[in-house]
Amino acid sequence: MHKARFYTLVASCPDQVGIISRVTAFIAEHRGWLLESSFHADDIDQRYFMRIEVRADSLAFGVDEFRLHFASLATELKMHWRIADSAEKKRVVVMVSQQEHCLYDLLARWQSNELNSDIVAVISNHHNFQGVVEWHGIPFHHVPVMAADKQTAFDAIGKIVDAANADTIVLARYMQILPAEFCARYPGRVINIHHSFLPSFVGAKPYHQAYTRGVKLIGATCHYVTEALDEGPIIEQDVIRIDHSDAVEDIVRYGKDIEKTVLARGLRYHLEDRVLLHGNKTVVFR
Amino acid sequence: MHKARFYTLVASCPDQVGIISRVTAFIAEHRGWLLESSFHADDIDQRYFMRIEVRADSLAFGVDEFRLHFASLATELKMHWRIADSAEKKRVVVMVSQQEHCLYDLLARWQSNELNSDIVAVISNHHNFQGVVEWHGIPFHHVPVMAADKQTAFDAIGKIVDAANADTIVLARYMQILPAEFCARYPGRVINIHHSFLPSFVGAKPYHQAYTRGVKLIGATCHYVTEALDEGPIIEQDVIRIDHSDAVEDIVRYGKDIEKTVLARGLRYHLEDRVLLHGNKTVVFR
Amino acid sequence: MHKARFYTLVASCPDQVGIISRVTAFIAEHRGWLLESSFHADDIDQRYFMRIEVRADSLAFGVDEFRLHFASLATELKMHWRIADSAEKKRVVVMVSQQEHCLYDLLARWQSNELNSDIVAVISNHHNFQGVVEWHGIPFHHVPVMAADKQTAFDAIGKIVDAANADTIVLARYMQILPAEFCARYPGRVINIHHSFLPSFVGAKPYHQAYTRGVKLIGATCHYVTEALDEGPIIEQDVIRIDHSDAVEDIVRYGKDIEKTVLARGLRYHLEDRVLLHGNKTVVFR
Amino acid sequence: MHKARFYTLVASCPDQVGIISRVTAFIAEHRGWLLESSFHADDIDQRYFMRIEVRADSLAFGVDEFRLHFASLATELKMHWRIADSAEKKRVVVMVSQQEHCLYDLLARWQSNELNSDIVAVISNHHNFQGVVEWHGIPFHHVPVMAADKQTAFDAIGKIVDAANADTIVLARYMQILPAEFCARYPGRVINIHHSFLPSFVGAKPYHQAYTRGVKLIGATCHYVTEALDEGPIIEQDVIRIDHSDAVEDIVRYGKDIEKTVLARGLRYHLEDRVLLHGNKTVVFR
Repeated sequence: MHKARFYTLVASCPDQVGIISRVTAFIAEHRGWLLESSFHADDIDQRYFMRIEVRADSLAFGVDEFRLHFASLATELKMHWRIADSAEKKRVVVMVSQQEHCLYDLLARWQSNELNSDIVAVISNHHNFQGVVEWHGIPFHHVPVMAADKQTAFDAIGKIVDAANADTIVLARYMQILPAEFCARYPGRVINIHHSFLPSFVGAKPYHQAYTRGVKLIGATCHYVTEALDEGPIIEQDVIRIDHSDAVEDIVRYGKDIEKTVLARGLRYHLEDRVLLHGNKTVVFR
Repeated sequence: MHKARFYTLVASCPDQVGIISRVTAFIAEHRGWLLESSFHADDIDQRYFMRIEVRADSLAFGVDEFRLHFASLATELKMHWRIADSAEKKRVVVMVSQQEHCLYDLLARWQSNELNSDIVAVISNHHNFQGVVEWHGIPFHHVPVMAADKQTAFDAIGKIVDAANADTIVLARYMQILPAEFCARYPGRVINIHHSFLPSFVGAKPYHQAYTRGVKLIGATCHYVTEALDEGPIIEQDVIRIDHSDAVEDIVRYGKDIEKTVLARGLRYHLEDRVLLHGNKTVVFR
Repeated sequence: MHKARFYTLVASCPDQVGIISRVTAFIAEHRGWLLESSFHADDIDQRYFMRIEVRADSLAFGVDEFRLHFASLATELKMHWRIADSAEKKRVVVMVSQQEHCLYDLLARWQSNELNSDIVAVISNHHNFQGVVEWHGIPFHHVPVMAADKQTAFDAIGKIVDAANADTIVLARYMQILPAEFCARYPGRVINIHHSFLPSFVGAKPYHQAYTRGVKLIGATCHYVTEALDEGPIIEQDVIRIDHSDAVEDIVRYGKDIEKTVLARGLRYHLEDRVLLHGNKTVVFR
Repeated sequence: MHKARFYTLVASCPDQVGIISRVTAFIAEHRGWLLESSFHADDIDQRYFMRIEVRADSLAFGVDEFRLHFASLATELKMHWRIADSAEKKRVVVMVSQQEHCLYDLLARWQSNELNSDIVAVISNHHNFQGVVEWHGIPFHHVPVMAADKQTAFDAIGKIVDAANADTIVLARYMQILPAEFCARYPGRVINIHHSFLPSFVGAKPYHQAYTRGVKLIGATCHYVTEALDEGPIIEQDVIRIDHSDAVEDIVRYGKDIEKTVLARGLRYHLEDRVLLHGNKTVVFR
């Protein structure tokens, strides 16, 4: 995020002749200076995807007027679209249970402003990290989750998220399954890190499953949460090598390194508006 | 295989105090000079695995006498064991259908003697590669496989394998499922390359499955063939990155690069007696 | 290369407002259907790079007319540019010495038409691969290189290249240093695979250098050849893990696997017009 | 570190027949139960390396007596050796400047006891991380370094290290070059993370050097510090892919992810006594 202030136009629409031309003509007409420009044509679904960064100071108007002016072209092209402003930091809620690695990693990145976002709250079903979170000046909410009454907990969580005016919810090894209703309430806004190379080893204890199957690499998957457990659109994945000498405990330890890296990469793509949904898949303009 | 002639002792047995000590004492007593020595203790099953290379010229006797002398200790330690001689090249039968990449790769390695083995026959259900195989001086056998009568084909294949006195059968993208009976006949001797990162995408068209699921890495798996399709012990795996811009055809092309490399690595481990079976898993002393 | 026939426009020019707009407007005006579209703005040098694929059958005219029409806009934008036609296969000359791995790999890819190009000649200072090359129906030229008189050899090589009307020369582990004059004659057209992760281990015996330094990964680098040895623009690189147990011979063997993969990737990028030179660096639109 | 208490015997000696046999016979004689056992024979220098873990509760005596008993055999075999006790946590001093990523990463691992060690002090030439370090209950020492008088600073640092009775000093992106004298005082005990894939890009601003050269992967190197800058024995390395679209700032950000992972791996190998020096190289028994 070293760049001067810029606007990010993200859009998808049915493919046809002249899409780039019309969009970039609109921007050029207003003297917009392009930074990154990325396009993707999906041959099978005949759908077009784009992401364009425009320097804010090259345009005569601000982001609201940009949105206003662009709307009619977008409608004409039948676009799903949004325009983000790099000066408006995204607001992130982090949810965590008892493992520290993803949380510390996000705190370090937040502290150095790597993600151009604010962590506006941390929610946990445990007390372990209350101290370190609050030391960083971030509100910490302890919300216990009772198996018999998840509803109460997730009502409380929803209120915290909404009160914090959060854009994005990150499950940083949060070990509770989200109710379907909660998932549906924040579509494309809840990001999870699953500790396997999906679709292998869905569900509980994937590292134990990996150990039992005798795989030679383990992985982690950052994905959007949907009502279908571990089946949401994948944003990012990576793997790390193990071998026969690694016990489950070793696999867990190796896994932590890959989990936090994959989560951070996926989250960055999301926060920088690099991820476009396409059915149950993603277009990621890295 | 740059080393002077050596013997490779491979063994597994119930764990107890003193196993390495007794095995290496036996070798030292005969003035055996150790090259590589690898050991693994499985905590859970309390089973011990080892692989030891001894320079042939350091021992007063040859490989047969080595086997003879070692047998009583092996019996005492309740070992599964074998001793290989690097001067006896392993004999490999390659089976292939219509894709060239694994076959060419194996031919190149055979030609430069990288694998310290002989390709004693190539068997195919197609004629595509008869020319290049025979040009290399390797017998080529065309064995068509009829869906209605696989038995006849695999009887013929078994005869070719046995006549060639083959140690190992390599399925180098051979696109027929082997009958259970055939698998059972050559346990731990048939090596397959599956074009997915198992256990993801078992069965047919794994690259299409990967495309549909929207994964961000694809993989390949080299494994021993058992009666359960794609469920045999895994020897080696690797992955390669793809993204939204890759069509199925691109994924197939990327996949070929990883398939041939993974197959070659797994085959080398097998031929160099680096792989020990442990239930449905492998110990690989690289 | 699964796509229907298409034209690839590759261009770079000084950056300014409206470049994409004007280029894509030109294409849209002629009803051109875009497949891949890639752009890159270099902030520091204020230079703009692009690569656009247009379906051939979407345009009313052929490639010559496309070039003709585009020329005036290109001149106005001060572009370096070219338009390639996927129906015209690139013509490749492969040069090789005594190692087989890159050559076999290229033959396999050529055989399956993966690279959408013709290998129009193989040139070697040895006879090792004459048989297998000629078996594939490719002309083989033995050109010995005398240390005392390289000029004669490279005059002969130049004549073969020119007679074959070659676009690209691939040094597939060709172990002779090219004279500066020869390099200058084919700028941006000679591709080498160097067996180290440049800029580490320039020059002779890089694997021995790697062994001596005790690095934990070794690499390979595919680059354009320039007069400065091993200093040309890098197209592609990759690495593979080694450890203390690997002797130089093992490192060489591991290296071969990475060399052929990196060369094939770099060559594909080049042949598909995905590589644009930018000073001594490359823009690679993968 | 899931294992019950164990002793780790680490040794190297001139190679000869019978080394493993004699060492393991000694252990077996005392009923020692082996966990991991690793051996390496260096063919060129005819030197033998080993690392053996013995369960503490399998031996009739404690670690001091183990050392006492083993000493005579070690002397006879001309060994460099040591025996570590997993119950004695290693004592680590972390030195850091103004970048947070390696420090936070080490704090997270320390907090979850992943490294089986204590961080007994953090030393910095800046105040940035005083708060977070002290919040964790770890002593923080601010030692400014004046270009004109480094001696004073490093005298102070030496006193802190010695007072803390530290085994290991970790330079976690500490941006001061250590005086030769200081390096010589703690041989094999100072671990640095260099932000390049050594031996490429020695010295200052390696990411800028990488950007200028146009490499396609960047790396990080964890190594022992010696008097020769960036030339000490390499413990661990890894790389990450970049491309033409990455500015220096992006490369720096990618680099941070690989730096902290490589440092953590290298440090773990060191703290678990998995690293043996061999001239200017390392044997790492992972």
